[in-house]
Amino acid sequence: MVQLGANRYGKAEVRVMRVSRGAGPGGGDVIRDWNVSTSLSGDLAATHLTGDNSAVLATDTQKNTVYAFAQELGPVPPEVFGMELAAHFVGTQPQITRARVSVEEFGWAPIGEPGYSFARTGELTRGCRVVHDEGAGVSVVAGLEDLTVLNTSHSEFWGFPRDKYTTLEDTDDRMLATQVSVWWRYRGTGPRGTGAPDVDWDAAFGVAREALLFAFKETHSCSLQQTLYAIGEGIIAAAPGVCEVRLALPNKHHYLVDLTPFGLPNDNEVYYPGDRPYGLIEGTVLADDAPDPGPAWA
Amino acid sequence: MVQLGANRYGKAEVRVMRVSRGAGPGGGDVIRDWNVSTSLSGDLAATHLTGDNSAVLATDTQKNTVYAFAQELGPVPPEVFGMELAAHFVGTQPQITRARVSVEEFGWAPIGEPGYSFARTGELTRGCRVVHDEGAGVSVVAGLEDLTVLNTSHSEFWGFPRDKYTTLEDTDDRMLATQVSVWWRYRGTGPRGTGAPDVDWDAAFGVAREALLFAFKETHSCSLQQTLYAIGEGIIAAAPGVCEVRLALPNKHHYLVDLTPFGLPNDNEVYYPGDRPYGLIEGTVLADDAPDPGPAWA
Amino acid sequence: MVQLGANRYGKAEVRVMRVSRGAGPGGGDVIRDWNVSTSLSGDLAATHLTGDNSAVLATDTQKNTVYAFAQELGPVPPEVFGMELAAHFVGTQPQITRARVSVEEFGWAPIGEPGYSFARTGELTRGCRVVHDEGAGVSVVAGLEDLTVLNTSHSEFWGFPRDKYTTLEDTDDRMLATQVSVWWRYRGTGPRGTGAPDVDWDAAFGVAREALLFAFKETHSCSLQQTLYAIGEGIIAAAPGVCEVRLALPNKHHYLVDLTPFGLPNDNEVYYPGDRPYGLIEGTVLADDAPDPGPAWA
Amino acid sequence: MVQLGANRYGKAEVRVMRVSRGAGPGGGDVIRDWNVSTSLSGDLAATHLTGDNSAVLATDTQKNTVYAFAQELGPVPPEVFGMELAAHFVGTQPQITRARVSVEEFGWAPIGEPGYSFARTGELTRGCRVVHDEGAGVSVVAGLEDLTVLNTSHSEFWGFPRDKYTTLEDTDDRMLATQVSVWWRYRGTGPRGTGAPDVDWDAAFGVAREALLFAFKETHSCSLQQTLYAIGEGIIAAAPGVCEVRLALPNKHHYLVDLTPFGLPNDNEVYYPGDRPYGLIEGTVLADDAPDPGPAWA
Repeated sequence: MVQLGANRYGKAEVRVMRVSRGAGPGGGDVIRDWNVSTSLSGDLAATHLTGDNSAVLATDTQKNTVYAFAQELGPVPPEVFGMELAAHFVGTQPQITRARVSVEEFGWAPIGEPGYSFARTGELTRGCRVVHDEGAGVSVVAGLEDLTVLNTSHSEFWGFPRDKYTTLEDTDDRMLATQVSVWWRYRGTGPRGTGAPDVDWDAAFGVAREALLFAFKETHSCSLQQTLYAIGEGIIAAAPGVCEVRLALPNKHHYLVDLTPFGLPNDNEVYYPGDRPYGLIEGTVLADDAPDPGPAWA
Repeated sequence: MVQLGANRYGKAEVRVMRVSRGAGPGGGDVIRDWNVSTSLSGDLAATHLTGDNSAVLATDTQKNTVYAFAQELGPVPPEVFGMELAAHFVGTQPQITRARVSVEEFGWAPIGEPGYSFARTGELTRGCRVVHDEGAGVSVVAGLEDLTVLNTSHSEFWGFPRDKYTTLEDTDDRMLATQVSVWWRYRGTGPRGTGAPDVDWDAAFGVAREALLFAFKETHSCSLQQTLYAIGEGIIAAAPGVCEVRLALPNKHHYLVDLTPFGLPNDNEVYYPGDRPYGLIEGTVLADDAPDPGPAWA
Repeated sequence: MVQLGANRYGKAEVRVMRVSRGAGPGGGDVIRDWNVSTSLSGDLAATHLTGDNSAVLATDTQKNTVYAFAQELGPVPPEVFGMELAAHFVGTQPQITRARVSVEEFGWAPIGEPGYSFARTGELTRGCRVVHDEGAGVSVVAGLEDLTVLNTSHSEFWGFPRDKYTTLEDTDDRMLATQVSVWWRYRGTGPRGTGAPDVDWDAAFGVAREALLFAFKETHSCSLQQTLYAIGEGIIAAAPGVCEVRLALPNKHHYLVDLTPFGLPNDNEVYYPGDRPYGLIEGTVLADDAPDPGPAWA
Repeated sequence: MVQLGANRYGKAEVRVMRVSRGAGPGGGDVIRDWNVSTSLSGDLAATHLTGDNSAVLATDTQKNTVYAFAQELGPVPPEVFGMELAAHFVGTQPQITRARVSVEEFGWAPIGEPGYSFARTGELTRGCRVVHDEGAGVSVVAGLEDLTVLNTSHSEFWGFPRDKYTTLEDTDDRMLATQVSVWWRYRGTGPRGTGAPDVDWDAAFGVAREALLFAFKETHSCSLQQTLYAIGEGIIAAAPGVCEVRLALPNKHHYLVDLTPFGLPNDNEVYYPGDRPYGLIEGTVLADDAPDPGPAWA
């Protein structure tokens, strides 16, 4: 005999561009360019077992709600959008006890003076994931993906164990590059209306991003793990309300090319970036007093 | 003050092609085409906090070990490869208490008579994820990704709640398409050498795949959730030793085109497949007596 | 002073799924799953120079026409669809003197007995490109992409020039793999209605595909160029009406892993497939009496 | 009987990162991050017909030469790299009569003060394509891809023909977005050493990019074709030595969401960006006295 285990469903990748005309500095337009995914869970056994959909708010309806809320809420930060939308689903659908809303935000910069014309920036994707749980309250995780950073020096790797399969040489001067995926969790979760975090989300994102870049640059790295920890520590120190940071850092290897067959020196000048395989370093840094995450990362 | 939380590291996407010449039916070559990722965890605080790498088996060494084991083990199923490799890391590195090995396997079919010539099949990617934990023992999860299936009829969707944002009409005849991601967990985990599953892995994969296709076809679907449950149930019933199935099913919407502006009928004949957004249905089906998964899905 | 040069415009990637219920063998449904792109050219200077769109059939209209023709034409081969659609644009829009219609076709196979249930095959993408030119007539190019093939032996590469940058060793036994992009041109182009090719398109596609696989397998290859030529020759010989074949063959290198540091042999057993860089071999094979292509490849 | 037609071969996607330490402003490092593809043609019939490789400079050798030239040339603009490398192949391989070198350049910006630390910019990819032909001389095409720009207003589309398949309404206020692919050709081609263009390549790239952004912003657009022409005209006017511009502009449609079912207004505020299909506008703008391109675009 079998039974239904954990489950959830929703609409993924609802693209929405919200233009607020003249609302920006200098009277320029403000645009919020999002990719929104919703996911609901609760008592959904009936649809799985018998196809009875009386508890299944259609994913098409979820999509419509994204658009409607984009209109009604105006150019809010994605975290606010996520909190409002998640609260709506849990608050209006009796059978839904948890809603997760993820938002990817794509950046745009004005072309010239602020106005109606924009070019997409592409150095990173901002994101947030809001979980509204009937019991555990609201949690907010924010972060970024796809930010690629590189140090041409100030990176070493040596002193690792050598077994029969080890051929890598120690090095005290290597290139270090990674494509950062980092997500940080805010304190202050709790039932909506009483404990929702009071954060300037756009500012906090900027602070965390700067802390990340600073830590990457300033850490003399003996391992990518050391850099990871320094980034986590830096974000917690700099961004008010952040209690936990999770990072996934691919080690984007840059291999020194052997030019000796051609009679040429290569004093750390010519590298070839490899695609695969790559090291992958994953880790968490927590404030000592970080509260339990509950379903924040679910 | 901050502290280090959960962490792991390894080499991702080690591509390896293992040719076993003349070892196949009719004297043809056997090829195993894999993408292997390893991930180790244990007492790794030192490298994070001080850059002391004395406990960090280099990811380059992990890559080398993948190649060496591919040679030594021969054309084994990916699950066997994963179990041997994971056991090696935990067994030889004192500070490593858990190893995870993931293998993607790409399919190839002989061109004509079996021999030296192959064409890649592309209808799915097979995979497995082995976790060897010093305490919890060995667990094996297998599965597949990217199998796209479609029913042109025998699918309905109606009876869902209607709120102020609902515009979707009930339908008793829609196209149903999904790109299956499914993973199943085997029973029999335990310390290696005493409790490792005794399974014909290649055969079990085939059985699970057939059960999936059969359940997709034979389920008259009132929701993709219902289809999901039927697939999970079907795999557990058919594949010996499977105790849990996890599925992620994007609803690849096919929208009926409105041809009335052109004076044309469209009796469920012309659809446009949408890219985004898509429904995403995720769920688990368990045998009633499924043992605790431990770190199997970590 | 500047002037307008060559230009064209259209709608790209119109996805359309055409279901013909019960029209297949055994009463099963027939599906045609296409990605259609249209491109029109002619006297379009006004819209470029002044924004006068009186000659610009909207790309939205082109999209609508794709859907309408899918309905009206039924489950025809993509080449027929392309010819009809291209003729329509040139025949009804006075300012349009040339239309190009490209169709990608994705394959589906019945699950079990023919009926309503299908699984997507993924080993290749079929395609065609039809050009209807008011002056030059109709030309049809068909082909396929993404078919990956591999010979584990019967491939050599030696005797190439050695300059100061050459380090590659001669080999008389290497693995040869490529992801085939091949397009073939049919004879018989001419004004529509008098000279359109009379071909069984689905059958011709199958013949060409088989000829390609056979030539790849049977050619003892001293270079990928030699294999390319053999494939082109094979398709022209086998597929009635084909006068020209164009191929682009990436050399998907499989490098033998050096296992000597680990005390292991590697008698052509363990390879790592590289992603980048890759050799890229491009070439054309023509029947001696191939007519001028005109705009067939534009 | 068949014959060999046009053909070429080379190494594609050779990734190379060239670090010039301390060579930048403020003593920071200079990095050039490239993806180089080479392609050679000439008398290559033998390898196609008989597998005789005596005229085939191995693609592995071409790759090595990329690395060696990166070392020897230092941090030159990609156009200079391309000219030197292409000249080398034609000048040293008697059977090779034409070489094409394509370079993609990925951008990096210093993190903080110039030094050893960089973050990848991602708003566009710079590129160039150099063709060195024994007869026709050297030609240089430069350009960029993947720059996405958007005007929230100042775009109209009306006055297009209406046939039986037309449903699109006229609009005098739409969003206009495109992902620019633009390539411009420099004058001054000719035999190397006498006629190679004398251009400050990095500066010219910047000028062309600015002209493109300015033209996109300042053109009140009645069609994407009109914008295309304005961009081409702007680049030719601004960038010294440019005689021809080729553009491919996908119309990245942003559709206004119909919020009336929810009782909400939508005064050009909430859009959904579509993925497919998209309009695709391709065109060329030429200086009146542009010389014949020869093989520049081959």
